[in-house]
Amino acid sequence: MNYKIALIRGDGIGPEVVNEAVKVLEAVGQKFGHSFTYEDVLLGGCATDAVGKSYPDGTAERCKACDAVLLGAVGGPKWGSDKPAEQRPETALLAIRKDLGLYANLRPAALRPAMADACPLKKETAEKGIDLMMVRELTGGIYFGQREKYQTEDRGLEAADRMAYSEKEIERIGRRAFELARLRRKKVSSVDKANVLETSRLWRSVMHRLAEEYSDVQYEDVLVDNCAMQLVRDPGQFDVVVTENMFGDILSDEASMVTGSIGLLPSASIGDTAPGLYEPIHGSAPDIAGQDKANPIATILSVAMMFRYSFHLAAEADAVEAAVDAVLAEGWRTPDIAEPGVTPIGTRQMGDLIAGKI
Amino acid sequence: MNYKIALIRGDGIGPEVVNEAVKVLEAVGQKFGHSFTYEDVLLGGCATDAVGKSYPDGTAERCKACDAVLLGAVGGPKWGSDKPAEQRPETALLAIRKDLGLYANLRPAALRPAMADACPLKKETAEKGIDLMMVRELTGGIYFGQREKYQTEDRGLEAADRMAYSEKEIERIGRRAFELARLRRKKVSSVDKANVLETSRLWRSVMHRLAEEYSDVQYEDVLVDNCAMQLVRDPGQFDVVVTENMFGDILSDEASMVTGSIGLLPSASIGDTAPGLYEPIHGSAPDIAGQDKANPIATILSVAMMFRYSFHLAAEADAVEAAVDAVLAEGWRTPDIAEPGVTPIGTRQMGDLIAGKI
Ligand SMILES: CC(C)[C@H](C(=O)O)[C@@H](O)C(=O)O
Ligand SMILES: CC(C)[C@H](C(=O)O)[C@@H](O)C(=O)O
Repeated sequence: MNYKIALIRGDGIGPEVVNEAVKVLEAVGQKFGHSFTYEDVLLGGCATDAVGKSYPDGTAERCKACDAVLLGAVGGPKWGSDKPAEQRPETALLAIRKDLGLYANLRPAALRPAMADACPLKKETAEKGIDLMMVRELTGGIYFGQREKYQTEDRGLEAADRMAYSEKEIERIGRRAFELARLRRKKVSSVDKANVLETSRLWRSVMHRLAEEYSDVQYEDVLVDNCAMQLVRDPGQFDVVVTENMFGDILSDEASMVTGSIGLLPSASIGDTAPGLYEPIHGSAPDIAGQDKANPIATILSVAMMFRYSFHLAAEADAVEAAVDAVLAEGWRTPDIAEPGVTPIGTRQMGDLIAGKI
Repeated sequence: MNYKIALIRGDGIGPEVVNEAVKVLEAVGQKFGHSFTYEDVLLGGCATDAVGKSYPDGTAERCKACDAVLLGAVGGPKWGSDKPAEQRPETALLAIRKDLGLYANLRPAALRPAMADACPLKKETAEKGIDLMMVRELTGGIYFGQREKYQTEDRGLEAADRMAYSEKEIERIGRRAFELARLRRKKVSSVDKANVLETSRLWRSVMHRLAEEYSDVQYEDVLVDNCAMQLVRDPGQFDVVVTENMFGDILSDEASMVTGSIGLLPSASIGDTAPGLYEPIHGSAPDIAGQDKANPIATILSVAMMFRYSFHLAAEADAVEAAVDAVLAEGWRTPDIAEPGVTPIGTRQMGDLIAGKI
């Protein structure tokens, strides 16, 4: 079968890591008898430089004509928060999520066997294992709320952001979480701040309704401040963690760091209809761009998620993950994950090695 | 000199830990020639049980008639988020902060020498030391914004919370942070989400203005998701971290857990005029209430902060902290911090030992 994939190479190290992911896609295609066609889509700082805005007209339509989207990385100090909104890469990220209806952001935070030493937590904690899936609501809440800025009489300028959630938005992300939990260890932890926020109280009431419906899944409420603590104290307690957009932004990054392997972690952003968007969780790292130093593994593992969640090709997904684990087990490391004394390899060699294992 | 202290004993283990803190206050009074009078103030779940609301009328006035407020802990499952607002302990906490103008919440997260083993991070990280001060804005932002709940036509119920900040609010908390940094290692890290939120962009612009004024203090902007990661990766990099209310709630709890000693950490909530409010960061732990098992150290160290920030009695503050460190160095532990093989002591004995060292 042929799959059409939109490639958003993006900024900084984005183009390099996408190149390696394409190598792996091709290797999988050859082995399993699929073919891929690629459609380059301009988005992010590079789009601002080329056409004056980070989210060129027609971007969503071009992506919608594909079966999935692979994104390298966007952003950089050149297009900072002092620039007008339409030139900032973040604006494009938020817009594409909304336009493609990608309301569910899946962020696995797992300690890969070969990388246990990289875990910043004590050995005893790392040994218990970490394997959680953060499910972040991605198209609602304060990141998409009304923004205001106005002059007051006695307090100077004042700014405001609005966080809103509807039952419908909460229910669809909640269902995703419970469905995922059924395929995993059957536990959902729902994170909110129901002792203060109205949105959280609505969130909690919808989750409780779902918990009754999915009565085979263990369910718990966790306050967001407590969750930030528990991720450090005992991340192994979590299976699926579901939360709203901003809490998810903060907690999923915390959970990622707890595994110690930011350069290895993929993500999937999906909606109810194709295409899903797949991207590494790391940034564009402009300081090492173009130097063959970037770690392509997170992007390659994002391809595995694409196979799993957009193409429903589980064997292909497993093959990619196994290839990554095999190369890591042999001791190959890019600079970001090289232990002292290990000679690191480059971006391209890492991609070649993984593609070679498929 | 005589100081009048309002005691909010509160719920769960609150009354027990306040008792031990009072022992220490008395010991300091005797040694340094101060006297203290105490005014019991009802607030929290116990107030709901007694008079039907968690924040009885006149609470603020009674506190304002004192020089400082010491709070044990409030809250518990009995007064959960299903109860009406006026019965919930959180409502009382938010109200007293607002009514006393306590806009600055100081949350030290430091690894006490005797407790380095409790740090959940790798030994190498713990050995570098952790000694940061989180400065959380406490009376603005989304925890005090307008709340809405309404029926929509096609999305079911919808809820909303509003986050607002004025230049004036940002400036006064910013100044606190810079002033504190001058007394410490002269570095301020300001946390925001300026790539998305309007309030964060205003926050950042005010902080930049202050950074120019306090040019002897090193300054950096940190995005909230990145900060959540850095606190796990390398907490030793931070000196003073300043941020808005909700980010501060999440990050200060994360930072506390990173030290591994929740039962040891105090907090101060202060405004421009007396009285400040001092409380341990831990909760009311209803499961161990009344069993002489609670750790009173965080409350005792809150008394040290009271001496330092409300009474400007640095020698007295130092004496309390030294007494705590001496007792810990001798190996005395309450159950929550007892290493395997150590026989723990009770709440009262811990209080007696610390008071005895003054
Ligand atoms: C760049 C920013 C808008 C984005 C977010 O917060 O959603 C990023 O932090 C992420 O997590 O993908
Ligand atoms: C109980 C709650 C309102 C409170 C807060 O979030 O401010 C608590 O978590 C705290 O940090 O003091």
